[in-house]
Amino acid sequence: MTTEATAYYALRWHGDRLELLDQRALPAAIRYCSYTGYRAVAEAIQQMVVRGAPAIGVAAAYGLVLAASESKATTATALRTDLAAAAAILRNSRPTAVNLFWALDRLERQIATIPDDVVTIRAAVAAEANAIEQENARTCEQIGQQALPLIPDRATIFHHCNTGALATGHYGTALGVIRAAHEAGKQIHVFVDETRPRLQGARLTTWELQQLGIPHTLVVDGASGQIMRTQRVDLCVVGCDRVAANGDTANKIGTYNLALVAQAHGVPFYVAGPCSTLDLTLPTGETIPIEERDASEVTQIGSEVLAPPGTPVANPAFDVTPAHLITAIITEVGIAYPPFAESLPARVKQARQSRAAR
Amino acid sequence: MTTEATAYYALRWHGDRLELLDQRALPAAIRYCSYTGYRAVAEAIQQMVVRGAPAIGVAAAYGLVLAASESKATTATALRTDLAAAAAILRNSRPTAVNLFWALDRLERQIATIPDDVVTIRAAVAAEANAIEQENARTCEQIGQQALPLIPDRATIFHHCNTGALATGHYGTALGVIRAAHEAGKQIHVFVDETRPRLQGARLTTWELQQLGIPHTLVVDGASGQIMRTQRVDLCVVGCDRVAANGDTANKIGTYNLALVAQAHGVPFYVAGPCSTLDLTLPTGETIPIEERDASEVTQIGSEVLAPPGTPVANPAFDVTPAHLITAIITEVGIAYPPFAESLPARVKQARQSRAAR
Repeated sequence: MTTEATAYYALRWHGDRLELLDQRALPAAIRYCSYTGYRAVAEAIQQMVVRGAPAIGVAAAYGLVLAASESKATTATALRTDLAAAAAILRNSRPTAVNLFWALDRLERQIATIPDDVVTIRAAVAAEANAIEQENARTCEQIGQQALPLIPDRATIFHHCNTGALATGHYGTALGVIRAAHEAGKQIHVFVDETRPRLQGARLTTWELQQLGIPHTLVVDGASGQIMRTQRVDLCVVGCDRVAANGDTANKIGTYNLALVAQAHGVPFYVAGPCSTLDLTLPTGETIPIEERDASEVTQIGSEVLAPPGTPVANPAFDVTPAHLITAIITEVGIAYPPFAESLPARVKQARQSRAAR
Repeated sequence: MTTEATAYYALRWHGDRLELLDQRALPAAIRYCSYTGYRAVAEAIQQMVVRGAPAIGVAAAYGLVLAASESKATTATALRTDLAAAAAILRNSRPTAVNLFWALDRLERQIATIPDDVVTIRAAVAAEANAIEQENARTCEQIGQQALPLIPDRATIFHHCNTGALATGHYGTALGVIRAAHEAGKQIHVFVDETRPRLQGARLTTWELQQLGIPHTLVVDGASGQIMRTQRVDLCVVGCDRVAANGDTANKIGTYNLALVAQAHGVPFYVAGPCSTLDLTLPTGETIPIEERDASEVTQIGSEVLAPPGTPVANPAFDVTPAHLITAIITEVGIAYPPFAESLPARVKQARQSRAAR
């Protein structure tokens, strides 16, 4: 299991309640909130108390555990009905990251196959949620290890959004790649873009890198071109919220722009994520649903108003980077190279076999 | 002369003082400040009370008029020495936009050729500053007219930073192109990117478009790729701070990224600016000096702290868009197409002849 080098944790399960670090308050305040009901967990996901594709998968799983406790059902059928209703509400919290659907699907598949009594079902949901959390932690460390051969001994790395322990529960995906390289003794410098509108780069990634002792420089999102034009950048690495079968990748808004900048400068562009983020049911990124969030995320920061009242806003929370801009996708079971339509199904199969073997 | 459709003005000369609209306070407050000394004008330019390449050219010119009044010199030689010292301080306020240097050079050339008496010199500086302001206003309207054939009757236009009356003194350059198209009866919708770190798009461009009644939508800088991937955008138009002889263009940070996004989507990318922004002494954009501004612009907005204390920051205020990404450069005397090394000198010559003919 992961030994966190840092004192904070994004989420922790206490048997009867889920504790979340309120990421909206960082870096100004470290504030933990406790959740004893699944509706409140769904709301916390929607409001981004917890965020990051892997972390919201784990949070949703524990949300369903809470739903199982909350249910007053005394028959297995009634409990299954309550859980299906709760899962629907949890699924409705955010549309883009597939890990949320993946975790809930997995829990529902699990309880479909077990004996018809409420005690066993409740225990099974809890055990499976716990397994998801444990696997998730292991997975992130494996992603970091798989990526090591890609990272030069001295490397300047451009990173977007937040993909660290905060986004994943443990260790991180793209930030896990950076962390593993740093822990392996490589000399790493990270350019962190601020990631408007919610500033996960400025607020969260700098904070995590500071605590890990990894040198970094914060820039605005629009500066990536100028940085790559004037300084050597060895590679970009980003996380992912949903990867289609052809490799098209939905990730935090601004990822696609960064990929275009990287391409223009011949800088390798890597996507890091667990196989649970691969959605092979979608042939391309065209049909990935892109969440549109509230205008106030763009027009206001805290008490500061940034635009005239009534300004019309478009606020897509994610974009889709076409596969042809992606050098490789780093998963826990290895690196997938183009053509992704062949390499991604192979990785998913491998991940399934590796899980079955444990 | 320009009849402003709007009630505000970026700067106004009152014979003995320069009045500037404090653009740092917009859109929350409309606050005018008066300046009676050239040092305070240099500081106002540095602190971006007034900003935008053409506007700071005009402001610096009036700064030199104030320096001429402030000087206690009684001989022409002493006055010329004082003016040279004042011009050096004004030149030192901001390094990238060439209009500032262009305006001061023009004033200094003017006083080099006139009779050796202090009254005549003072009058000449004032007359030439006024001529620069008048020409600047005329120039912007001409840019708008020149661009009309490029704008479809129904057009969705992507715009970066602020290039309106606030940035230029009158009418605007890139925003002048949009305004002229709107006034010509074309149906225009503008995507305004917020333009971090100083948010000229969110704070100023939305405010000007609102007052002009031109429909618009505000987005974060990182969303341009997703917008162009999912919606029809007919063209991009941006301003410029300095254009090299080969067409490489320095403009507000984020311009280069937008140009790469436009190229990826086959969207024409236009630069609009007066010939005074062309710096044919520089063969390429490689040697354009790029201003590095304070870290606090990135880490703080008003009282809101956006990153952990001590976070290292890179804050280049401008970037350079290579000429090969630029479809055309729209000037007051016509549109320059590639190869710019031929078309730009021709436009400059034409502008000079047109000024001489008046």
